[in-house]
Amino acid sequence: MQTQVAIIGAGPAGLLLSHLLHLRGISSVVVERRSRDYVEQRVRAGVLEQGTVDMLVESGVGSRLLKEGLRHEGIELRYGDRAHRVAFEDLVPGRAITVYGQQEVVKDLIAARLEAGGDIRFGVQDVALHGIDGERPYVTFGGERLDCEVIAGCDGFHGISRPSVPEGVLTAYEREYPFAWLGVLARVEPSADELIYAFTERGFALHSMRSPTVSRFYLQVPVGTRVEEWPDERIWSELRTRLETVEGFTLATGEIFERGLTPMRSFVVEPMQYGRLYLAGDAAHIVPPTGAKGMNLAVADVRVLDRALGAFFEDGSTALLNGYSEACLKRVWRAQHFSWWMTTLLHTFDSDDAYGRRLQLSHLDYVASSRAAATTLAENYVGLPW
Amino acid sequence: MQTQVAIIGAGPAGLLLSHLLHLRGISSVVVERRSRDYVEQRVRAGVLEQGTVDMLVESGVGSRLLKEGLRHEGIELRYGDRAHRVAFEDLVPGRAITVYGQQEVVKDLIAARLEAGGDIRFGVQDVALHGIDGERPYVTFGGERLDCEVIAGCDGFHGISRPSVPEGVLTAYEREYPFAWLGVLARVEPSADELIYAFTERGFALHSMRSPTVSRFYLQVPVGTRVEEWPDERIWSELRTRLETVEGFTLATGEIFERGLTPMRSFVVEPMQYGRLYLAGDAAHIVPPTGAKGMNLAVADVRVLDRALGAFFEDGSTALLNGYSEACLKRVWRAQHFSWWMTTLLHTFDSDDAYGRRLQLSHLDYVASSRAAATTLAENYVGLPW
Repeated sequence: MQTQVAIIGAGPAGLLLSHLLHLRGISSVVVERRSRDYVEQRVRAGVLEQGTVDMLVESGVGSRLLKEGLRHEGIELRYGDRAHRVAFEDLVPGRAITVYGQQEVVKDLIAARLEAGGDIRFGVQDVALHGIDGERPYVTFGGERLDCEVIAGCDGFHGISRPSVPEGVLTAYEREYPFAWLGVLARVEPSADELIYAFTERGFALHSMRSPTVSRFYLQVPVGTRVEEWPDERIWSELRTRLETVEGFTLATGEIFERGLTPMRSFVVEPMQYGRLYLAGDAAHIVPPTGAKGMNLAVADVRVLDRALGAFFEDGSTALLNGYSEACLKRVWRAQHFSWWMTTLLHTFDSDDAYGRRLQLSHLDYVASSRAAATTLAENYVGLPW
Repeated sequence: MQTQVAIIGAGPAGLLLSHLLHLRGISSVVVERRSRDYVEQRVRAGVLEQGTVDMLVESGVGSRLLKEGLRHEGIELRYGDRAHRVAFEDLVPGRAITVYGQQEVVKDLIAARLEAGGDIRFGVQDVALHGIDGERPYVTFGGERLDCEVIAGCDGFHGISRPSVPEGVLTAYEREYPFAWLGVLARVEPSADELIYAFTERGFALHSMRSPTVSRFYLQVPVGTRVEEWPDERIWSELRTRLETVEGFTLATGEIFERGLTPMRSFVVEPMQYGRLYLAGDAAHIVPPTGAKGMNLAVADVRVLDRALGAFFEDGSTALLNGYSEACLKRVWRAQHFSWWMTTLLHTFDSDDAYGRRLQLSHLDYVASSRAAATTLAENYVGLPW
């Protein structure tokens, strides 16, 4: 079996790359360990930057997104008894976020690929990369061999692409936070029109939504927390305590039908490439979810990689491919810093002394009172220009 | 001996308060443990916010400041091989800083007070505060007794005013940094027109100046460093390494005639008042020098206190005096946060892992590339509006 680009992983990065390459007339095969059903149901990120939305729309896979996605022109910061709206329409005119689940993006991309005759292999076993330091790499899986010219490693943090690079080539940068997010989906109309990022002495809470009838919530919990420690009534009680801090706000409750823990971790490898293997998205870097940057960074990588592969297959030019990692890492580190900034702004840290807590409140007050400070939040949140 | 306001300490805070009260026709006596010569020579801060300059000029003590002070409309951030100018004239039009030594402000204020017949007692011994929880407090020193209605504690971090408040009344918030600043004054023309804040792998360095013929430098050094460990040649060599990172920049050297260590510490007490005692400036709060906020905060406190005392002595109104601490603390915490922000942006921390170092470079890149981020630096540096 032969293709131009072998793509490992059918998440947003791999599928979008396959789609964009197809538009250029470049062939690809997507190889995915999980089933189609699994990747289409997997609950992950749900906030798309303006640039991500534009890109999906421009490449022809945005019609459902435009119909069902919830466009938000602001978020609320809540702390003490204060509520402050960060107004994107005023601070970064024309740019907004769109609330639309990652699995919906995945569904749209799979549908588009299959309709165009794209080749996606779901549920394959024993995926392995070979010859990535040469000009004729290939991928094996379930007894098959896929010959290609380039491999795109889009198989996430736990995937096999990154470990396929010889030891000593990549440098890893990491940080772990001493807390996690307990996330739930509930069948209940959102209690507010926009996302609410709440800082309280008991920890962070986030009010979000997936649709007009499904709310999404997150609670900061200690590392090591087990989901079983959080029965429904405890979740609602804690959400009420952390979110009902503002006069006139009441949290609507409903059936919780999904719950899970998200670790808070930062990770980057440099470079994001080796030989003919190019890493994109979570395979190369992860961020804590506070800044809602994970999927958006994956899309940004794919945008760079698609152009570089376009130049490569068009006239053999390797300049863009050689510069792939460097081109991506500037945005990656910006997102790393922003995600760290949002995380430290909004979470309680056990190590914090009384001085640190006051500093945090002063920082929140500053974001709520300075146009420049609010703009730094807004411009990163909706996504800096490519 | 009798006065309306007894002022402890003849630093910028105490002297300015005495001067402003005089303009209102309110009497005061300033009591200072050190000699006039000592306070007029003491090398401290040297960067005045726009509001500080305006206030000194408007109250009639700014003529030499306007003549000899160096008005700067920007500072430079230097890191890696990059130099980025934060342009105040563009980011915060009409606002700038003025480089003018604290001891020069002190000289101007002493001259003005003495010319107006003001009463400043230098070199007094055994200063003690009495009856601050009643309506007739008094101060004793060197066998004398000074009766008054209000006491202003302007005697700095190590003064006796703050410890005169009964235990349990004040809450202290503190943080110490694991490094200090080694500061020197040298007889040499500044090597650049503006201040240079340099971040390097070896630590922070600051290029500043006091006049067209005197340069001021600071080097980040470990806590516990002794001045004797830093002979002239080591200082120049280290300054060159940390500052000569940009093509075409050469550090001019000259005779070092002053050197000293500045601890990097943050401290706030709340409230800033008890009974008839009001704390102002370093007596109530200190910041690491990175943000150049120390003297400016003292002036901001004095501005609030002067108005409150004006209302009090005019018609007995205590509303402003009762609200003194709260009115000051918002600005105090803003300055605490900014000083922490500048300190962590520009210094190396032993605890930093490779991830933390990358985050710091990404942060510097952000300040150098985002107008909003640069504006947060600029608006705090020149001083937020009162």
